[in-house]
Amino acid sequence: MTPVNATHDPARHSWVESANRPDTDFPIQNLPFGAFERNGEPRAGVAIGAHVVDLRALRDSGLLAAGSDAAIACEAAGDGTLNRLMAMPPRYPGALRAALSDLLKSDSPQRASVQQHVQALLPRIDEVALRLPCEVGDYTDFLTSLHHTERHGRYKGLADPLPAAFKSLPIAYHGRASSLRVSGGEVRRPHGQYRDANGQVVFGPAPALDFELEVAAWIGEGNALTQPIAIDAAHAHIFGYSLLNDWSAKSIQWFEQVLGPFLGKSFHSSVSPWIVTAEALAPFRKAPVPRAKDDPPPMPHLHGALDQQQGSLHLDLYAHLSTNGLREAGAQPVRITHTHLDNLYWTFAQMVAHHTSNGCNLRTGDLLGSGTISGAADEARACITELTDAGRHPLRLPNGETRTALEDGDEIVLSARATKPGAVSIGFGECRGRIAPALVDRQAEIAA
Amino acid sequence: MTPVNATHDPARHSWVESANRPDTDFPIQNLPFGAFERNGEPRAGVAIGAHVVDLRALRDSGLLAAGSDAAIACEAAGDGTLNRLMAMPPRYPGALRAALSDLLKSDSPQRASVQQHVQALLPRIDEVALRLPCEVGDYTDFLTSLHHTERHGRYKGLADPLPAAFKSLPIAYHGRASSLRVSGGEVRRPHGQYRDANGQVVFGPAPALDFELEVAAWIGEGNALTQPIAIDAAHAHIFGYSLLNDWSAKSIQWFEQVLGPFLGKSFHSSVSPWIVTAEALAPFRKAPVPRAKDDPPPMPHLHGALDQQQGSLHLDLYAHLSTNGLREAGAQPVRITHTHLDNLYWTFAQMVAHHTSNGCNLRTGDLLGSGTISGAADEARACITELTDAGRHPLRLPNGETRTALEDGDEIVLSARATKPGAVSIGFGECRGRIAPALVDRQAEIAA
Repeated sequence: MTPVNATHDPARHSWVESANRPDTDFPIQNLPFGAFERNGEPRAGVAIGAHVVDLRALRDSGLLAAGSDAAIACEAAGDGTLNRLMAMPPRYPGALRAALSDLLKSDSPQRASVQQHVQALLPRIDEVALRLPCEVGDYTDFLTSLHHTERHGRYKGLADPLPAAFKSLPIAYHGRASSLRVSGGEVRRPHGQYRDANGQVVFGPAPALDFELEVAAWIGEGNALTQPIAIDAAHAHIFGYSLLNDWSAKSIQWFEQVLGPFLGKSFHSSVSPWIVTAEALAPFRKAPVPRAKDDPPPMPHLHGALDQQQGSLHLDLYAHLSTNGLREAGAQPVRITHTHLDNLYWTFAQMVAHHTSNGCNLRTGDLLGSGTISGAADEARACITELTDAGRHPLRLPNGETRTALEDGDEIVLSARATKPGAVSIGFGECRGRIAPALVDRQAEIAA
Repeated sequence: MTPVNATHDPARHSWVESANRPDTDFPIQNLPFGAFERNGEPRAGVAIGAHVVDLRALRDSGLLAAGSDAAIACEAAGDGTLNRLMAMPPRYPGALRAALSDLLKSDSPQRASVQQHVQALLPRIDEVALRLPCEVGDYTDFLTSLHHTERHGRYKGLADPLPAAFKSLPIAYHGRASSLRVSGGEVRRPHGQYRDANGQVVFGPAPALDFELEVAAWIGEGNALTQPIAIDAAHAHIFGYSLLNDWSAKSIQWFEQVLGPFLGKSFHSSVSPWIVTAEALAPFRKAPVPRAKDDPPPMPHLHGALDQQQGSLHLDLYAHLSTNGLREAGAQPVRITHTHLDNLYWTFAQMVAHHTSNGCNLRTGDLLGSGTISGAADEARACITELTDAGRHPLRLPNGETRTALEDGDEIVLSARATKPGAVSIGFGECRGRIAPALVDRQAEIAA
């Protein structure tokens, strides 16, 4: 069997030509997992260039050695979601990824056999409907960027803009799982209660709509209730990562928030369709940025030797905005954010260790959002609230438009690239959503 | 087919003798749904007296007319959870409940046929292992008792103890679904970060453990994303109700809470095993207590004519405490709380209408907790924090013990009775949990 390292080999190319383009997110070194619909049926798949390997077709092709770990893993994805595959010990999905790398490489001895099945095996991504990659039990959203937290504290005029707990634990709240949606399509502007310009509480289409650029970890193997996950075991429980746009109706949030965000977030959260595996990201691991000298060290249960060595990733993150005006003018989307995973104060392993430190059980398919990944630099502000200094300095677009919040028709595309000298750069695919107008006359309709 | 009203008929008795005892929670007028394990297999069931009707055995018995709504509903519960049954239009579970009422009534023409199957059909509840009645997608917890909220505001020394939003909308947060557990067994004291008596942040077994007495609504038919549920349609989306003990580690909560409760709650939440259907509770419907004259009226989308007539229930609620000391002395559990559903400021229909007002989708099996149902009276305080005036006046037990928080070995039992002149009183079954000591040396173990 191909060792994991061979799947990262920069010399490896694919006979799927689109996977060799330098700008693809999905070279043969990536092979992220996802789910899609084909002929009305749910399917699990693996992205390669502009194509997706249909794992049910792969199972039926006989190309995987019967009884092999790869075949067992492929069989587990036969129901069209990834939950069973993700719940398996990592060697099974790892074996499937390695087998796919072998089948898809330019000099694969099986190339001719695979190509006999190419119609069934390799639909184009743009010809299938992508789905949320797995069923999400619980979705947790963290608040782990010091810069994001501090800026928001300043906007609120707090004497100490950073909450007391921020450097002691990764702050988090439970999010809404039912309204998670795969990237693409419309994000309906919600109705809600908020204070208008006169301070009156009104109910209507929510102003002050914002995006929030996040990375989210998908839980693979879970833990039993009452059994915490130790910090240096935590990475083994993370199957992979996606991009998350935690759309926020700030107007609703500001008024409702007593026990945390609720309707200001639960109208829609967008997730990129592909789970980039922790295994594919291994070459891009790096040490997290050390804490400032004056900062308290993490408590023992949040301090892991392994995590201190490789708890972050060489991962650049981007947000692009397009508007009706820009599209009508034929202009490209405008890059409004360029940030980096290093801007998190806490690592994903620390989030997992903290989350389970009270015995809380994580389940396969649970999603852990990083929180908005803002950095110190102006270009690293990862939501419009920060990009406009809470509305004081509107965002100016090349066509003269300005924004202090998202307007109907505005589209946000999040993207990410892992890069490191000597490794083939891999991407996450996009997390896209366009604001659709609030449903008309909804208040009257509801009251009727 | 038996009309719904006949299932409420006070003259109806059952040939299951234990269902006719005046103290039973499960007379033939109740027939709540639940789930259990039998011979290692998951089963759905309906409680009657001290027994449970095994719905798979009922399906296999041929007692239900083939093709009838009742048979279709029974078939839907064949997988051992209630989700598919709960997702059906209410006439299906209603028909099953009516058919069971007919089969189990004293003068049932089918009595002899049913009794031929009695071993398979009617195990004793205490001989099966009860399970959570269905799979919970999302769990939402509200804060809808004015008295609970105001008292906590005063403990914090707030100038205005009631948050600005309280009378404008039912405040809520997303809870943790994975750590919901059916009544019974141990509730492990969690570890967590908290401030010790010197104000130092430490990590260890959490002091200040509390219970919170709540009622929770189970969602039957859900709604699509972007499509709110109108207030007067909301009751039709509620399949039924259970008791909820929202165990709280106040020490953790006070320190961590920036974006709402998280690890202070997510270590365990207990739910009573039976879903008392909205249909069984119909005779106990009543108008909610009118708002005070100075209170703002609910906004149109939270104001429903039907809800104003019957949005509350004649439902008394109780909490009992027993301790190692009381049990060793052979003493009965001590009743520490007696409250009433009328102590909620918002109705469940208002919770549903608010929750979906931003387009958020509810799914079958979602759980909506009322929040702690405290009233104005001293005996109606529904958690230890309130019962002790935030620790200032410890709870004194008959054997001389005192409590300002739950100690290891303490057991809380929640119960509820719906009563109204002219109707047969029905109960909810119990929601029980006993505090088990924190796992030893967990900090060292995690750090190791």
